[in-house]
Amino acid sequence: MKLGRLNHIGVATPSIADSIAHYRDTMGATQITAPFDLPEQGVKVCFVDTPTHSTGSGLSESGGTQIELIEPFDESSPINGFLAKNPAGGQHHVCFEVPDIEEARAEFEAMGKRILGPTRIGAHGTPIFFLHPKDMQGILTEIMETPKEAH
Amino acid sequence: MKLGRLNHIGVATPSIADSIAHYRDTMGATQITAPFDLPEQGVKVCFVDTPTHSTGSGLSESGGTQIELIEPFDESSPINGFLAKNPAGGQHHVCFEVPDIEEARAEFEAMGKRILGPTRIGAHGTPIFFLHPKDMQGILTEIMETPKEAH
Repeated sequence: MKLGRLNHIGVATPSIADSIAHYRDTMGATQITAPFDLPEQGVKVCFVDTPTHSTGSGLSESGGTQIELIEPFDESSPINGFLAKNPAGGQHHVCFEVPDIEEARAEFEAMGKRILGPTRIGAHGTPIFFLHPKDMQGILTEIMETPKEAH
Repeated sequence: MKLGRLNHIGVATPSIADSIAHYRDTMGATQITAPFDLPEQGVKVCFVDTPTHSTGSGLSESGGTQIELIEPFDESSPINGFLAKNPAGGQHHVCFEVPDIEEARAEFEAMGKRILGPTRIGAHGTPIFFLHPKDMQGILTEIMETPKEAH
């Protein structure tokens, strides 16, 4: 395993609409995707792009670690418990990229890390899985295969 | 306000030594700074570098959003409360860069956002301040001036 790109941080929110307004109006984000449903994961999702550089000639508006806003899709959403404890929302997970999802899964399994459910297609359209926070320093950790066309 | 680079995510830990081992041995990080004390902020700190690209010609080992590991410096550390609630550690804050810290502070104040304490020098040696999580969608948010030599 070689540490991959921090693709996004997952932020749970009771209202994607309110969170979009926050990132746009308070924080000054300019690149925010339209929200879409991921019913099989029980969430509505959108991404806020962050720049790779803040100053100088490298000024950019995207390409950095994204903020993934996630709102419950329905009553059975896996993030309902998190929002019950954190009604205003908050930091829910982090997501690192790997070049090969099956190889990564085998490596984490060999290390005895608990994997939460099957490998499935995530919000970026590539395979993902989640690792148990108790095995990952208290952090729910998503592993995603790097999109082929990206970067 | 224009959204700046996501400089780092702050991760609280009961043991920086254990967390360094986790990021090195489990996650495969290769660039981790030596821990250092920030007694005025009540924490010990080190940074795990993440790459900007995971695949292809842009393969890198640093330049992405960093993971800031923070361990209590003493009994009065401001992160003791967080660790009491989250004994294994977890996601503590996020930090965005701005080109001018005083300008940013004035803008957040004008928006009625609560700022926690004075502007002070942070772990990267540039001025920083924190915004109250209740005003920031449940997320303790650090604002830091971009290092002049960086990026």
